[in-house]
Amino acid sequence: MAPMIKSLSAAGRFLEVSWEGMDQPVLYPALWLRDHCHAPHSMNQETNQRSVDTFAIPTDIELETVSLDHDKVTVHWRAEDPASEYPVSFLWKMSDRKTQAETHEKAHWAAADLKGALPEEDWAAVMAEDNNGLKSWMEKIDLHGFALVKGVPATPEATQDVLRRIGYIRETIFGGFWDFTANLAFADTAYSNVEIGPHTDGTYSIDSPGYQAFHCLEFDGTGGESIFVDGFKVAEDLRQSDPEAFETLTQVMVPAQYRGDGAHLMAEHPVIGLDRQGNLKKITYNNYDRAPFRLENDLQDRFYRAIGLFHEMINDRAYQLRFGLRPGTVVLFDNWRVLHAREAYQGHRRLCGAYHNKEDFLSTLRLLRE
Amino acid sequence: MAPMIKSLSAAGRFLEVSWEGMDQPVLYPALWLRDHCHAPHSMNQETNQRSVDTFAIPTDIELETVSLDHDKVTVHWRAEDPASEYPVSFLWKMSDRKTQAETHEKAHWAAADLKGALPEEDWAAVMAEDNNGLKSWMEKIDLHGFALVKGVPATPEATQDVLRRIGYIRETIFGGFWDFTANLAFADTAYSNVEIGPHTDGTYSIDSPGYQAFHCLEFDGTGGESIFVDGFKVAEDLRQSDPEAFETLTQVMVPAQYRGDGAHLMAEHPVIGLDRQGNLKKITYNNYDRAPFRLENDLQDRFYRAIGLFHEMINDRAYQLRFGLRPGTVVLFDNWRVLHAREAYQGHRRLCGAYHNKEDFLSTLRLLRE
Repeated sequence: MAPMIKSLSAAGRFLEVSWEGMDQPVLYPALWLRDHCHAPHSMNQETNQRSVDTFAIPTDIELETVSLDHDKVTVHWRAEDPASEYPVSFLWKMSDRKTQAETHEKAHWAAADLKGALPEEDWAAVMAEDNNGLKSWMEKIDLHGFALVKGVPATPEATQDVLRRIGYIRETIFGGFWDFTANLAFADTAYSNVEIGPHTDGTYSIDSPGYQAFHCLEFDGTGGESIFVDGFKVAEDLRQSDPEAFETLTQVMVPAQYRGDGAHLMAEHPVIGLDRQGNLKKITYNNYDRAPFRLENDLQDRFYRAIGLFHEMINDRAYQLRFGLRPGTVVLFDNWRVLHAREAYQGHRRLCGAYHNKEDFLSTLRLLRE
Repeated sequence: MAPMIKSLSAAGRFLEVSWEGMDQPVLYPALWLRDHCHAPHSMNQETNQRSVDTFAIPTDIELETVSLDHDKVTVHWRAEDPASEYPVSFLWKMSDRKTQAETHEKAHWAAADLKGALPEEDWAAVMAEDNNGLKSWMEKIDLHGFALVKGVPATPEATQDVLRRIGYIRETIFGGFWDFTANLAFADTAYSNVEIGPHTDGTYSIDSPGYQAFHCLEFDGTGGESIFVDGFKVAEDLRQSDPEAFETLTQVMVPAQYRGDGAHLMAEHPVIGLDRQGNLKKITYNNYDRAPFRLENDLQDRFYRAIGLFHEMINDRAYQLRFGLRPGTVVLFDNWRVLHAREAYQGHRRLCGAYHNKEDFLSTLRLLRE
């Protein structure tokens, strides 16, 4: 909620607002104000789309008077423009440019932090029309990077119904929703030497999948625990323990490729992606799919040292949350944050799953939070 | 093709290669070499996936001997590792880290450069099994940012068949392939004041659509020319004429949003996106969908000045290629480079189209170029 406005005035080319609890008044420039007018003549009230013509606003536009009425500020212009209006909450939100990013708390975890108390929601609640269970599940995913749904019928159809609560399923070169059976013989011969360690999916993709879901539909065997690692926790710990290695992993663009199935995909990402404020944004790591590339020899050394440290940390059991996926439990995790791995197993397993785009998950959560 | 190797030697922790025509020898470090070994024991020959365990390579690994046999360099290690092999072409490609990016010529254009000679391909050639016409069409799109296919049957099915030559159609919150009829009454009332100027699609999308296709299936009227602007040409001209404005547009992250249809998408991009070498990568511009945001007041001034200049340039007829979309012609353009706009029209028009992801188009083109 926005705090109170102590006073406001039209100070030439600026609107000057003094907020309760702030020492300095905030100066909002006239051109910016006219461009961000919330009145119906300048902004589509349904879509929030701009309908003012930004480029027709005189760059020397000036305020004439300004007034405050409850939760609304009205500005009259010296030009014959209609008056502009602004919710107080909007001006508050724009009072500090650093607060404009959507930031929601992330609870970084090591294995011990969650062991025995995994974030979860019930199937009936997630499917309920009131959306409360859906919101609760998605909030947990946003907070921890993953969360389970318990009590889901062990069918592809029921799994898809759960996933479609979040949004449409992402299409890739591999198709959309998948449903896969592997038996021991196959796993033994083809994959026995290729135990896949913690990684994120789609490192060769420009827009790596935002979220991935698994549902083990059938399991008759032993072993096969799933492993999840909070890449944000690892990255923050590395930032503390070895700032040089951390910085190297944020700066070196690592190319990745996928060849097969009639495709040759390529993309490059840093292992640790930051936003422009230095906050963690995206972990991208799969050493198997790393494409050939060469750096200056000294940077090459730093890179191998840094990626070696990262590899060591994500393979440290202290960071690895391990649990068995069993029929009836859907797990959905943030592929921009949580690395996943698979242990060897004995027996028969049928697994299905899908991807969601980052933006579509966030869109649904944004609407649920309104 | 790789040039000749003049001489090579195992220089302690480095492979030293002297290339024909290069003054200085290139030093390839041992750890990097072992990690990039092309022999079957270390690289999957079909997928090019790494199968050596990067993190098990001793960081003090040393070369013992090195030999050259035709187009292959063989390295023996002091450790008991099996010998490593490298195509000469690979070592050449990795001789200068700047040459590793895929760079293909782009022919930047103003309207006069292409008027009367639009890049195009015939439908039969594009559909032919030998892929030559498909490759030719895609090369033209890569070079100019767009190209036409002429002689396509004016049906949604035939249009989809053409587009699926490139890859699967991208799913979005709006669905996949679309097919839309607008008549004058609708266009007049809802859209008469909202003539949409040059823009790119999906500014509110994390991975804005890479390519967009249109096919006008029915047209009975006048006007309605399509407008295309080469954003790379505009950006390069701005880089020359006003470096400060250019830099501002590469640095300010502009948020965009879409509200409606059960979605609230948000993303942020600079108007002019560069890669880490400073090459043009992506134009992202739609002033209507720009979300509210505020910068420091001096940067805010610079931003309005810069975006005003950009707006002026893309609305300058010298940059605007204009032609009528008519039944039988599919146009596919690079939405990361070419801005599109629509003129008002009188009469009946039925338009269909779709998006492709950037990575999928490039994947297909990469395979065709092999």
